[in-house]
Amino acid sequence: MTTKELIIQIKKKNSFLCIGLDVDLNKIPQHLLKLEDPIFEFNKAIIDATHHLCVAYKPNIAFYEAYGIKGWQALEKTIKYINKNHPEIFTIADAKRGDIGNTSTMYAKAFFEDLEFDSITIAPYMGKDSVEPFLAFKNKHTILLALTSNQGAFDFQTKQVEGKELYKQVLETSKTYTNSENLMYVVGATKAEYFTEIRKIIPNSFLLVPGVGAQGGNLQDVCKYGMSENVGLLINSSRGIIYASNNTDFAEAAAKNAKDLQQEMETILNK
Amino acid sequence: MTTKELIIQIKKKNSFLCIGLDVDLNKIPQHLLKLEDPIFEFNKAIIDATHHLCVAYKPNIAFYEAYGIKGWQALEKTIKYINKNHPEIFTIADAKRGDIGNTSTMYAKAFFEDLEFDSITIAPYMGKDSVEPFLAFKNKHTILLALTSNQGAFDFQTKQVEGKELYKQVLETSKTYTNSENLMYVVGATKAEYFTEIRKIIPNSFLLVPGVGAQGGNLQDVCKYGMSENVGLLINSSRGIIYASNNTDFAEAAAKNAKDLQQEMETILNK
Repeated sequence: MTTKELIIQIKKKNSFLCIGLDVDLNKIPQHLLKLEDPIFEFNKAIIDATHHLCVAYKPNIAFYEAYGIKGWQALEKTIKYINKNHPEIFTIADAKRGDIGNTSTMYAKAFFEDLEFDSITIAPYMGKDSVEPFLAFKNKHTILLALTSNQGAFDFQTKQVEGKELYKQVLETSKTYTNSENLMYVVGATKAEYFTEIRKIIPNSFLLVPGVGAQGGNLQDVCKYGMSENVGLLINSSRGIIYASNNTDFAEAAAKNAKDLQQEMETILNK
Repeated sequence: MTTKELIIQIKKKNSFLCIGLDVDLNKIPQHLLKLEDPIFEFNKAIIDATHHLCVAYKPNIAFYEAYGIKGWQALEKTIKYINKNHPEIFTIADAKRGDIGNTSTMYAKAFFEDLEFDSITIAPYMGKDSVEPFLAFKNKHTILLALTSNQGAFDFQTKQVEGKELYKQVLETSKTYTNSENLMYVVGATKAEYFTEIRKIIPNSFLLVPGVGAQGGNLQDVCKYGMSENVGLLINSSRGIIYASNNTDFAEAAAKNAKDLQQEMETILNK
């Protein structure tokens, strides 16, 4: 999917919501556990109930790997279901990969070609030759970790590196990578005041923003400081939507919470 | 496996060799492709031919994920085969994961409990709460990326952060994490002169050292500057061993190259 197509969807749906499909068998409604593939059935119900309210789905790969081959099968079925029934939706493999060149190419093929994700999250620590193999794929997007929403972000990301914080070095250095137009960035919502500085470095890039809701971030603040001319934001919510209820009404409850966020976004977009 | 048991194995085998099982179907002998599970059959032959020469095996997870469910099955069979037939061998899931707390726990369970790896490689960018969930597992080891062997390492890892290079900040900060005794570190062989400085910060920690051979690193230099009292080194070789031949004699050729490295190690150990 091109960035232009993503922007069209955002304007059409009045939404820049991304729903995180982080399926934990201990948290999903118990009646699903009797089915053959509870992870996929849960995702399918959530997707059926929310696809008109969001522009992106983001399975965190850890939750699937944790269930071994069954988890991997559920992931394959989920991405195929989205691509077949809702090809207009932007898909993110939240994998946080990053390895040396030939290995990065293996990961890129797995997620971009075999699973047909539109994008993948990548850790920047190993630098240029760990990121560029992902950037080489046309109309695929590499979402680089810049400033994450967890407490550990302060260990290294906000430390001063040659006069500016490490996450700013990551933003600036990554702009010099070949095919850097295929970059997006992860920036946590819990640090809304940082968005002004970030937009000075990358005025138009899309930012994937975790941490609204469960982790304490505020949607209004993020939009105030982080929104670009073309919106440039994908706000992720996982637990706050998919675990809105753990009864048989879980999909409707998820849709209700997604709708609340979508409507807040619609108000912001039409301001 | 405890660190003590690893050291015993090193002394018993006169080897601190780790063999990287990075199986690429385009590079393995063509006659294997007719078998039902060529990846596992390749690994099994390599393991049968080399297990007495090395103390560790390190499958890079990217190579398995690239083949989807079949790859994942081959990985499961490989680790089970090692654990059943050679339980004295230290196993490393070269996964380079790292995510926020609850997600890291999912990865840790997948690799430590379900697949029963002894260790996993982890990227440090997200800091303390992305690493500590791995450290919580007893007799399991978390191998943190410090200074990698690729060109991109110079993008961020060697940049000055508050008066010292980022990789040194990673070493020092990680020592303050809970259960830091379960840490090991990735340090590339291509930068042997860095080992002196690294040993000042972590005198006894085990270092997983890629980059000997194919990437240009020199075993003698690494040992001269990097060896600790208890050896403290696992030298990895992947392509140089497993792709020594792509004919039917591939396993013997791999054993020959492994033996060459092991004998060089034996000489160093007995100096």
